[in-house]
Amino acid sequence: MLKLHGFSVSNYYNMVKLALLEKGLPFDEVTFFGGQTPQALAISPRGKVPTLETEHGFISETSVILDYIEQTQPGKPLLPADAFGQAKVRELLREIELYIELPARTCYAEAFFGQAVEPLVKEKARAELIAGFATLKRNGKFAPYVAGEQLTLADLMFCFSVDLACAVGKKVLNLDLLEDFPQAKALLALMGDNPHMAKILADKAAAMPGFLEMISKKR
Amino acid sequence: MLKLHGFSVSNYYNMVKLALLEKGLPFDEVTFFGGQTPQALAISPRGKVPTLETEHGFISETSVILDYIEQTQPGKPLLPADAFGQAKVRELLREIELYIELPARTCYAEAFFGQAVEPLVKEKARAELIAGFATLKRNGKFAPYVAGEQLTLADLMFCFSVDLACAVGKKVLNLDLLEDFPQAKALLALMGDNPHMAKILADKAAAMPGFLEMISKKR
Repeated sequence: MLKLHGFSVSNYYNMVKLALLEKGLPFDEVTFFGGQTPQALAISPRGKVPTLETEHGFISETSVILDYIEQTQPGKPLLPADAFGQAKVRELLREIELYIELPARTCYAEAFFGQAVEPLVKEKARAELIAGFATLKRNGKFAPYVAGEQLTLADLMFCFSVDLACAVGKKVLNLDLLEDFPQAKALLALMGDNPHMAKILADKAAAMPGFLEMISKKR
Repeated sequence: MLKLHGFSVSNYYNMVKLALLEKGLPFDEVTFFGGQTPQALAISPRGKVPTLETEHGFISETSVILDYIEQTQPGKPLLPADAFGQAKVRELLREIELYIELPARTCYAEAFFGQAVEPLVKEKARAELIAGFATLKRNGKFAPYVAGEQLTLADLMFCFSVDLACAVGKKVLNLDLLEDFPQAKALLALMGDNPHMAKILADKAAAMPGFLEMISKKR
């Protein structure tokens, strides 16, 4: 059985968890915080969360894990059947990761953990996030899902990245990234109603106090 | 016929070009510098190079383009046949992109175009590049290729990212990133001997003066 290593506060972890739940696959969850210890690096080469334990070994990097699950496991497809359609889903997923998730992440410390971020970093994040949201508006279908009528891998990246990026916008950059983007607001609401989301958010809420305590001890 | 839009100085462009040449596929090259004009954004949602024009439309993001070519075109395979092996190639490709290419890229302006980069940015790039090269050393097979005995998509990211990251290390960070990493040095040399590389490097050399002039006019 597949084992998902990570922790319920991680948005990347929750992307894979939602994929597994959507596909109706059995899986075990193993608590793993990543890090640079030899033990962590033995199962995740950059010490990152999540990592998926398969019968053949471990796989890191969320988008790679998602493609592997899609390629090898039964259950509801989260990619279209045709290669061009698949490429467009992967393109959207990658754009959300590179141009929304990664710039937002440079400000997570200030947005969520009370640690100030340098003005230069915020300035760069602001410009990149504005361009990233413009990219998503330009390329997303929102019909109602990011890539069209069906829920795909792009929606997993969307719902767990765009919400945090919006929080970064509000808390750190004084910027409403969803102003004039009603389609994205509507999709966030729709994903919030996803029956598996309740479990993911409850697990996240339960894990949050312990995670914050761990973070504060590390400072 | 596939049309590759971009320019010969771009390392991402050259990754796709090498894939097409390795697979022996016919393709047209169309000069495209990306950017934020409506014309550029109409064929590349973030205005980035390269973008691949197919019979179905355009595809952006190098790793997505590489997967699409692999999935739809004939010629020498650049991925193993099994899903787990494919995942490991994609994992290595992603690690080289996220943890080597992207941090190195934050210092390209100083390394290649004579524009000073903020000390804070360099400090961050230094820490990330050291961790990124350690990741590659830990996870790469180098037998002699990044993922094993066969040339794969991971080698395309490797040869066009690691060389530039090393130049950033030397020119900007006073850091020899390949010290104690003879396997990577050997693979760079092997890829340098690849018969298609001569054409790619000649095209790059021919395009460089015009590119530098364009960059200097934009300042």
